[in-house]
Amino acid sequence: MTESSLFKLVETVTSAPGYTSSMGTRVLAAEAGYVELALDRRPDLLQINGFFHGGIIAGLADHAAGGAVTTALPKNRFAVTVCLQVNFLAPANGETLIARAKAVLAGSTIGVAQVDVISLAGGVETACAIATVTLRAVEMPARISLQPVST
Amino acid sequence: MTESSLFKLVETVTSAPGYTSSMGTRVLAAEAGYVELALDRRPDLLQINGFFHGGIIAGLADHAAGGAVTTALPKNRFAVTVCLQVNFLAPANGETLIARAKAVLAGSTIGVAQVDVISLAGGVETACAIATVTLRAVEMPARISLQPVST
Amino acid sequence: MTESSLFKLVETVTSAPGYTSSMGTRVLAAEAGYVELALDRRPDLLQINGFFHGGIIAGLADHAAGGAVTTALPKNRFAVTVCLQVNFLAPANGETLIARAKAVLAGSTIGVAQVDVISLAGGVETACAIATVTLRAVEMPARISLQPVST
Amino acid sequence: MTESSLFKLVETVTSAPGYTSSMGTRVLAAEAGYVELALDRRPDLLQINGFFHGGIIAGLADHAAGGAVTTALPKNRFAVTVCLQVNFLAPANGETLIARAKAVLAGSTIGVAQVDVISLAGGVETACAIATVTLRAVEMPARISLQPVST
Repeated sequence: MTESSLFKLVETVTSAPGYTSSMGTRVLAAEAGYVELALDRRPDLLQINGFFHGGIIAGLADHAAGGAVTTALPKNRFAVTVCLQVNFLAPANGETLIARAKAVLAGSTIGVAQVDVISLAGGVETACAIATVTLRAVEMPARISLQPVST
Repeated sequence: MTESSLFKLVETVTSAPGYTSSMGTRVLAAEAGYVELALDRRPDLLQINGFFHGGIIAGLADHAAGGAVTTALPKNRFAVTVCLQVNFLAPANGETLIARAKAVLAGSTIGVAQVDVISLAGGVETACAIATVTLRAVEMPARISLQPVST
Repeated sequence: MTESSLFKLVETVTSAPGYTSSMGTRVLAAEAGYVELALDRRPDLLQINGFFHGGIIAGLADHAAGGAVTTALPKNRFAVTVCLQVNFLAPANGETLIARAKAVLAGSTIGVAQVDVISLAGGVETACAIATVTLRAVEMPARISLQPVST
Repeated sequence: MTESSLFKLVETVTSAPGYTSSMGTRVLAAEAGYVELALDRRPDLLQINGFFHGGIIAGLADHAAGGAVTTALPKNRFAVTVCLQVNFLAPANGETLIARAKAVLAGSTIGVAQVDVISLAGGVETACAIATVTLRAVEMPARISLQPVST
């Protein structure tokens, strides 16, 4: 697929009604094997100290990893998470959370992505988490492949 | 602390304004070293196939693990997540998600909890994920310790 | 396969020339979805403080998990590790290390096992590590299937 | 500490009698926050297909991570592994295994390192595993600090 159709694919999945759109997930970049997402601070995304909640960080990393591996797979294949590992490095106390996922493996059955999660505060980036996500390749869900994702 | 004050502590943290209360997290049980939480199906918690999103499962497991280890720590100590690992076993397509977390270590600096996540559909439980969460013990946040959590 | 042929399969893989036999791995039990292995203390298996090294603990857990999932798969399928996660709970300072692995998933492509690793000292068991291992099912290697593992 | 004393520290721990020296671990590089180790192919390090065993890969990654975080800590602090996560990407069928570990966090209680494990065959490098290791800082073991590690 062309770069713009890969962007559209990630955008379609992300903006579909459900978790990712409800949390306010924005697609910043999507190309074969790489996806970058952002999420802006909102009261319902925070934990008791006012930082982004670990579940939100994990969810954003997971979704970015799914995009990075799916865009590296053959057309009509889709990556679903098998194993999600997140290390939290610093409080995510910025106004925006950014996840940058890169596929390090996109095999016929297994894919792996590494994700850097950044807390952005006043233009300054702080690494707040890293994640490694293991996925497996399945058929593209009908709901997505029926969308006109071609350029 | 007594069992009822431990329940109240987990309830206070869970129902405080923010992520866990916004997602609809309910505390089913909380005793020293064990916490059980539930979350009911809602459109904004689902992924593209209509199952609970991995981020929601990870977030619920994480919060349950934090409760299980915090309730096993000395008073005024609080467990924050260092490393979160989730294995997804089956689609979480039930009407309710339940996380049962048990502390397997609650040391002076490090705690570890194992979590079973269940998808409940028509009264039938399906194991949809397991998680292992590594936490570290810090001072109880002022916001919580100022709450009247005494029995 | 019968229980005794499953035991023989695990025994065959474990005692073949290479890492597991060189480390002194012994098969204590093997049935469909469950494998128990042991390893006795030896100077070359220890770290700087005289405890079993983390690599030895990880290797034993990994091998036990492979056995637990392989014995739960259809005949002629073999489980290879995709993702290995080990939490170290206490120093492994006993005279024997025991790993007890249980398959929690044995699907057509993905298997997952949970492993308890025990340090045995003077007859007393101490939980020294827990592991979660994600595997994928492949064809049984020719080297093993050529062995007479039938009862 | 100077670079050469950091190298000597990692060398001292690695060459001490026990697991790492018995497996043949060599220190290729060690500076503050970065350690590179190698291990040559030997029959007792291999699994059934003739590749380096997962336990050996995990053990090498673990030891490299410990070095990377310890060299980033204040003098007389030592990093011990809390949680070890390894993703296996490709068969480690080369003649040498190389682990390159980089500390991404070296806090007062918790450290985290990311490790790339390479299989080297005929001068060609293949990424065979990635690992993320979470460690905690403790007092330097007396056995090490008594060694003359100064330059």
